[in-house]
Amino acid sequence: MDLKSLVDSIRSFEGITRKNLIKDVTGLLEETYNIAGRTLLGFGDDASALEIGNNQVILMAADGMWGKLMEADPWWAGYCSVLVNVNDIAAMGGIPIGMTNVLSTQDKDICNQIMDGINEGVKKFGVPMVGGHVHPDAPYNSLDVSITGIMNREDVITSCGAKPGDKVLVAIDLDGVIHPQFHLNWDTTTMKSAQLVQAQIMAMNELAQKHLLSAGKDISNPGTIGTLGMLLETSNAGATVELELIPRNTDVNWEDWLKLYPGAGFVLTAEEDNVEEVVKILEKVNISTAVVGSIISDKKLYLTSNGNKEVVFDFYSDKITGIHDEKP
Amino acid sequence: MDLKSLVDSIRSFEGITRKNLIKDVTGLLEETYNIAGRTLLGFGDDASALEIGNNQVILMAADGMWGKLMEADPWWAGYCSVLVNVNDIAAMGGIPIGMTNVLSTQDKDICNQIMDGINEGVKKFGVPMVGGHVHPDAPYNSLDVSITGIMNREDVITSCGAKPGDKVLVAIDLDGVIHPQFHLNWDTTTMKSAQLVQAQIMAMNELAQKHLLSAGKDISNPGTIGTLGMLLETSNAGATVELELIPRNTDVNWEDWLKLYPGAGFVLTAEEDNVEEVVKILEKVNISTAVVGSIISDKKLYLTSNGNKEVVFDFYSDKITGIHDEKP
Repeated sequence: MDLKSLVDSIRSFEGITRKNLIKDVTGLLEETYNIAGRTLLGFGDDASALEIGNNQVILMAADGMWGKLMEADPWWAGYCSVLVNVNDIAAMGGIPIGMTNVLSTQDKDICNQIMDGINEGVKKFGVPMVGGHVHPDAPYNSLDVSITGIMNREDVITSCGAKPGDKVLVAIDLDGVIHPQFHLNWDTTTMKSAQLVQAQIMAMNELAQKHLLSAGKDISNPGTIGTLGMLLETSNAGATVELELIPRNTDVNWEDWLKLYPGAGFVLTAEEDNVEEVVKILEKVNISTAVVGSIISDKKLYLTSNGNKEVVFDFYSDKITGIHDEKP
Repeated sequence: MDLKSLVDSIRSFEGITRKNLIKDVTGLLEETYNIAGRTLLGFGDDASALEIGNNQVILMAADGMWGKLMEADPWWAGYCSVLVNVNDIAAMGGIPIGMTNVLSTQDKDICNQIMDGINEGVKKFGVPMVGGHVHPDAPYNSLDVSITGIMNREDVITSCGAKPGDKVLVAIDLDGVIHPQFHLNWDTTTMKSAQLVQAQIMAMNELAQKHLLSAGKDISNPGTIGTLGMLLETSNAGATVELELIPRNTDVNWEDWLKLYPGAGFVLTAEEDNVEEVVKILEKVNISTAVVGSIISDKKLYLTSNGNKEVVFDFYSDKITGIHDEKP
């Protein structure tokens, strides 16, 4: 696949385009989302941050499982509901504390499979599911999970801090397998020890505490390039990225690789002086990390490969979520 | 309606019977819900409590809006998603900090109405909606909201602390109206100032800080008697309640009154010496509060009226949620 076709495929990827509605929704809440004066970060980050005194913030995030996931593999949906929420807190550099869920199903077997998956996720990530709500009479199956984390106020890793001149890093655990039913789910955790998986989460907390990053975001449904795009959009910046520098498991082709949802994957930006230490901390927990490009003031994301260059997103005209620098 | 018919009507009330599945679901998570050793309170309370150090706990709760509510009045569903979550934190005596939501809808008009309702709720209760997730392609309309609160560890009001000899109090804001479409929704907040509504929430925090209660729970879908039943079930106790002592707006008949979901309503237990101060604190914020009976060691809920006496729940054989003393 040539670079132009790859870029076109990314631009039209559903994992990215379905983010377009976000601003329409969050825009409606802009008036009130800092009503108590505690909101340090709101929409546009993996989690919101709210001040609670003692120089601490709590982090809050929520994710709904895709209907397709629920239907095809309820166990995996339950497991992933833990994974995606924990990764939202990890991306901020926080420590996940607990989760709640709202489960809608009339089918006891599906309910059991979902709960088995949640239990397995809880054991793997060490974060308990402590409460929630059951709709035993809903005419559909759905699972929504929210998470709360905690961290020091001044350590928070945001999506909006990337500055021209910073290096762009992609960090992904390459040791995984494609889920048999979902070819864009890159499972790197079910086969690993709870100890290693939790060490991966805490590595992000170490980066946060050491203030080594200028921005960070966990790679989710929009994939590696889409997630970087969202980070650039909220940071009001652009970037150049060299395709071949992105860490990849060569069993997967570039098109799938750039769209998949990894078990442990982050897009990060850092000043050049900090890059070596960032890489060291992440590689120690099996997350392959490489500098793939640089942040630029020109608000476009350029992808280069073998001397060719294409614009993936032009933020002067394109939007992904439409959310810019989200500080209240 | 005679007492026997009233009790039969309560026992078969959907708001109570649909709680029967809860234990089947939470039972599946019992193995892991204290995996990190932080879980002070888990299932069975209005919110879970997790230790975060500094002698503080965070409280977490989640609620899904009934499908019927979503279809008939999306604005009200949005508004109530705030109200029910804030009341879950208030019932524990905590301070609500922030909320997240997962919204599923393909209909932009419904989405706007829900968000309008949420905004109005946020302004009324002073608790921001700081993040969440949108499913723009779900084949159904649903809204799930979660909330996080904070409080001192030793002040937490639980559902499981009622002791034989304690007085049972019912506390309800009587100044309200029945929602035109939902005859069991007792709206007491839309017409009141944000200041008064927020003072009602903080009155529960005052009761918590002063350690005036042995147990408490907010009156929700199971209504006043159903909510008291759940409190007794988790406390492993029974109670005698005199019907006519329950504060009531006489515009509403007893059967509806005991089933409705009030805007501000709590079932509380307290030692006799504390009753006067509890009543004073709640009545100051327009919440009518009265002693309606006593906690007994016989694990049954007896309702008496004009010399008649009926058993509403016999916990030696009946279950509501099936959850007993929920401390890990």
